[in-house]
Amino acid sequence: MPLFATHIISILPNMASADKFDRAALEQLVTKRFFYAPSFQIYGGVAGLYDFGPSGSALLNNIISLWRNHFVLEEEMLEVDTTIMTTYDVLKTSGHVDKFADFMCKDLKNGEIFRADHVIEAVLEARLQGDKEARSAKAGKTAEQIAAESAADAAAKVDKKKKKKKGTVVAVELADDVRQSYEECLAQIDNFGGDELTAIMKKFDIRSPESGNELSEPKEFNLMFESLIGPTGQLKGFLRPETAQGQFLNFKKLLEFNNDKMPFASAQVGRSFRNEISPRSGLLRVREFTMAEIEHYVDPENKDHPKFEDVKDVVLTLLPKDVQMSGKTDTVQMTMGEAVEKKIIDNQTLGYFIARIYQFLDKIGIKSDRLRFRQHMDNEMAHYACDCWDAEIHTSYGWIECVGCADRSAYDLSVHSKRTGEKLVVREQLAEPRTVELWQVEINKKTFGPKYKKDAKAVEEALLALSEDQYAQLAKDLEANGVGSVQVNGQSVEVGKENVTVKRGTVTEHVREYTPNVIEPSFGIGRILYSLLEHSWWVREDDEARNVLSFPTVVAPFKCCLLPLSGNAAFEPLVRKYSRELRKAGVSLRTDDSKASIGRRYARNDELGIPYAITIDFDTVQDGTVTLRERDSTKQIRDTFENILKTLVNAN
Amino acid sequence: MPLFATHIISILPNMASADKFDRAALEQLVTKRFFYAPSFQIYGGVAGLYDFGPSGSALLNNIISLWRNHFVLEEEMLEVDTTIMTTYDVLKTSGHVDKFADFMCKDLKNGEIFRADHVIEAVLEARLQGDKEARSAKAGKTAEQIAAESAADAAAKVDKKKKKKKGTVVAVELADDVRQSYEECLAQIDNFGGDELTAIMKKFDIRSPESGNELSEPKEFNLMFESLIGPTGQLKGFLRPETAQGQFLNFKKLLEFNNDKMPFASAQVGRSFRNEISPRSGLLRVREFTMAEIEHYVDPENKDHPKFEDVKDVVLTLLPKDVQMSGKTDTVQMTMGEAVEKKIIDNQTLGYFIARIYQFLDKIGIKSDRLRFRQHMDNEMAHYACDCWDAEIHTSYGWIECVGCADRSAYDLSVHSKRTGEKLVVREQLAEPRTVELWQVEINKKTFGPKYKKDAKAVEEALLALSEDQYAQLAKDLEANGVGSVQVNGQSVEVGKENVTVKRGTVTEHVREYTPNVIEPSFGIGRILYSLLEHSWWVREDDEARNVLSFPTVVAPFKCCLLPLSGNAAFEPLVRKYSRELRKAGVSLRTDDSKASIGRRYARNDELGIPYAITIDFDTVQDGTVTLRERDSTKQIRDTFENILKTLVNAN
Repeated sequence: MPLFATHIISILPNMASADKFDRAALEQLVTKRFFYAPSFQIYGGVAGLYDFGPSGSALLNNIISLWRNHFVLEEEMLEVDTTIMTTYDVLKTSGHVDKFADFMCKDLKNGEIFRADHVIEAVLEARLQGDKEARSAKAGKTAEQIAAESAADAAAKVDKKKKKKKGTVVAVELADDVRQSYEECLAQIDNFGGDELTAIMKKFDIRSPESGNELSEPKEFNLMFESLIGPTGQLKGFLRPETAQGQFLNFKKLLEFNNDKMPFASAQVGRSFRNEISPRSGLLRVREFTMAEIEHYVDPENKDHPKFEDVKDVVLTLLPKDVQMSGKTDTVQMTMGEAVEKKIIDNQTLGYFIARIYQFLDKIGIKSDRLRFRQHMDNEMAHYACDCWDAEIHTSYGWIECVGCADRSAYDLSVHSKRTGEKLVVREQLAEPRTVELWQVEINKKTFGPKYKKDAKAVEEALLALSEDQYAQLAKDLEANGVGSVQVNGQSVEVGKENVTVKRGTVTEHVREYTPNVIEPSFGIGRILYSLLEHSWWVREDDEARNVLSFPTVVAPFKCCLLPLSGNAAFEPLVRKYSRELRKAGVSLRTDDSKASIGRRYARNDELGIPYAITIDFDTVQDGTVTLRERDSTKQIRDTFENILKTLVNAN
Repeated sequence: MPLFATHIISILPNMASADKFDRAALEQLVTKRFFYAPSFQIYGGVAGLYDFGPSGSALLNNIISLWRNHFVLEEEMLEVDTTIMTTYDVLKTSGHVDKFADFMCKDLKNGEIFRADHVIEAVLEARLQGDKEARSAKAGKTAEQIAAESAADAAAKVDKKKKKKKGTVVAVELADDVRQSYEECLAQIDNFGGDELTAIMKKFDIRSPESGNELSEPKEFNLMFESLIGPTGQLKGFLRPETAQGQFLNFKKLLEFNNDKMPFASAQVGRSFRNEISPRSGLLRVREFTMAEIEHYVDPENKDHPKFEDVKDVVLTLLPKDVQMSGKTDTVQMTMGEAVEKKIIDNQTLGYFIARIYQFLDKIGIKSDRLRFRQHMDNEMAHYACDCWDAEIHTSYGWIECVGCADRSAYDLSVHSKRTGEKLVVREQLAEPRTVELWQVEINKKTFGPKYKKDAKAVEEALLALSEDQYAQLAKDLEANGVGSVQVNGQSVEVGKENVTVKRGTVTEHVREYTPNVIEPSFGIGRILYSLLEHSWWVREDDEARNVLSFPTVVAPFKCCLLPLSGNAAFEPLVRKYSRELRKAGVSLRTDDSKASIGRRYARNDELGIPYAITIDFDTVQDGTVTLRERDSTKQIRDTFENILKTLVNAN
């Protein structure tokens, strides 16, 4: 229940519409109140690495804590904590060694490095802007008018996910077809691979927006940080690019922990790493970040969700892929029930999690009218995904991908199983036994042992673990040539028909065996935190200098600030007593006993987003009453500390 | 308040005394209930990397959560969250690039790699054991008697912190002086550097305990994982070996956040890394681990602690360094007040934290009679520390260092300040102004600007930031030669007496400026967790197969297990309802609706260390009563769910 009758958040002036958003002022606030700052700043800092200060760190912890309650505890997910350091083999198998890469190009004269897609965007957007200015100049508008229009236009239409080095804008009018080809290219930029980027750079003569120099052809750069494990120099490892692999590798143990019951989910919160080519947009593109990931394992033949009913009336803003492929960004609003029924969202489980993501973001304070779910286009998708919807939050940088909700199908479990020979499957007792025709292997024990000696067991196991196609091939080879081969620990071993017989046979199955599909909601906590800062920030109308961060109480860095009126010694025992009682009641607390005036300290609290402040004054010493102030409304009430404490404990 | 009248923990048979401790059985339990397991196990695993499963991860999170309450919230410490990836410059300055290393040696024939100190220990201990067997055989004892005595002896006396490859024991009697020299060497093994290790290996002819082959001379191996940041290949980074540096680098911002008030502490929980040479003892020696570190900044001239009074009567078991240097390990028991008064512990702040560490470990379930505080010997200390006490917990591996409490003096802030030119100091308004004699610099503006042009500002700043010694040298040089030099951004710049005058003068100071000292309690959460598993584990007397982990409720992976008697559909709505209400009341929960019997499921709960279980049966459907079972006593009570819920919420 809200503590004060009218909670101010709903009537706040919306300071955050992108066209007049003063990002520099917010950044100043973020630095001043140490939400976060560049790491190693006294050493000059390094792009893409940030440290969270006490306020940012508390905000981060509270968001994670709410995430745990909302997802992990609510669904009894199996939370794990796996290593960041991951071996080459694992990430080779998962596809990250080969495919987790961006394209970079180099200024051929000064060596500056750019991300290829970003440099194309920067240059084309600058040319379009120049075109607009040239056309408007003809129409007699002022430079300011043009700039304002363009900014509003950009914010409304273009997805500017990355802060790019801006191209220099020169007012040159473009031919209509050229302009159109630029716009089409920009709408699909995330959809392009290396060859396409190379072609575009040639076709549109893309040069460095900084120097105007020619650029090298786009070259793949793997985004994983690499290291060596142990002193031998032989064992290569990477810092994980996602927390997911650690979860997949433990699938068998997790299923067992869950008493073999399906469906279930594992979850993990932890650091992941991307060695970004040239990160430039604050918390939105970083080299080290906290993720929270869920891997929900589901029967591929039945992706219904038992709790779908709970979310079917949630209304969402959707941007499906076919709309984007036609070069547009028009969203549709509909209930989750309708979206799944119309197959816009593929199945109930995917839909359930999309709706739960919406509810989570809403709870922590993301404005729902600045939140949409965008479906990935086919080429844009990660190599492991077969469908993916991003929760995108609107900020002054445009629409930012903050949560991905991907259907990874059986990709990961299948590749790891294949590579290691470990079965990563669910075995389900069938209600009715069923008869199936299968390839069967018979081993001639008499000749088999003597032939393979100490390898006999490994060869036998390999023979028993072949796929249906492999059995068919082996049967064909044995029939045709009398010999065939089987892979044993990466080596081809010959088997002859005197040792092995492969034939079709009928078996009765009592158990169904399948590789589950994985629905993966994956949260970038830093991006969510940054978006929340933008959505929560406003400035009091009566005073330009008075910033407020209106975080919901549940995630605010501290719930309450305790302020003795002055440094008078009479207040000291009360500060100790009240802070002990507040802590005991679970109210997170910051004591501000600095010498600044109460007014200045209230202003400081507002900037830290602390929703409540308790002031101790000389009356408190006499009668035990304190003043409670609410952040957004600045309203104050006076009551005994005991009553205020009760009020605070229940306040949200 | 305890839920049941007699809480069983205090009367548990002490299964964990080291001489008869069945570690293999505990390890089996840990694996079976997925507390933790080797990472990438399906790929064969990698030494020193472990994943925590749902039970281990929950235990870990609960320990961390209690740590936050006990330390961070209690003292309003400033928690931060800094990056793992750390640049070369930072760790070069901190001393880790040069000094964070162990000595390794290689089997000269088969290439196997050992840690030098570990291999010496293994070989000498095996020889001592052989000596004992030879002497006992003379005295007519059986091999079993000898083995039992030795194990008890080892557990009681020797600090076996590392599980080493064991040397082969051959019953050979040693001369008395040889035996004594081995024992002295072992008592001081942590105190030896590279030269000493080399000398010992030669003197005692240390060979591989595995193959008997000769070993290479000990060679330093830096324990940091190295990587490259960004695509240029120019920027070297390391995975942090401790979370401390990230805190020191933000000192200035943190002091400001704290309104410039001293003393204060920052804190951080996060992953750190050590590229161990040859890790072999489960969670006790790993390459990636969760740390929780506090950096408490204190005035070097006054290390009293305002809350020392609260802890002065805490009784602790201490092992001071002078005892160890004399080759002994006898501990003393005394109150913290006495320890500080007798200067066994240097100051109140160090003492305060040692006592708080004791209270924390006690709270999470570490047995206080198996906990001691051992002071580091001089050469054993990390390069940055000037005094250090380890909280050591006794386990089947011997005494394990689980928490370090070091006085890092002003080391880190000083070296970073010197390297970056950023002042990392506290400025304290003096009650009375004071007059001091200082070197003073006067710059001749007329000639200075024209001479240094664009560098003038940098040269001036460098001149103003010299130390007293540097001023004295410069004054001497100017006097003698008419020129001197100053370091500007790492380059030597000449200054002449026509530009600069340096002389002694008197100034009145209103502000005292000092570099604070740092007291650092540093917790290895994984080691604490492992020790807790050993201290919590026991087996019911009536049934060998019934393992129990008696975690205190506050850290148990889940507080309660919810068990429907069977798969009967009538129980489903009750499971949903009760689990919702338990969650809402903040009771962490595991539902076990598997088909196993209630007895088997209770046994499973005991193995997971879940203190309470609620069973839903057919009476529940009728009258809303449930059975509550307590883990340690196995006592059961029957009451309405509503009453049980209330009891549970208050239970500890």
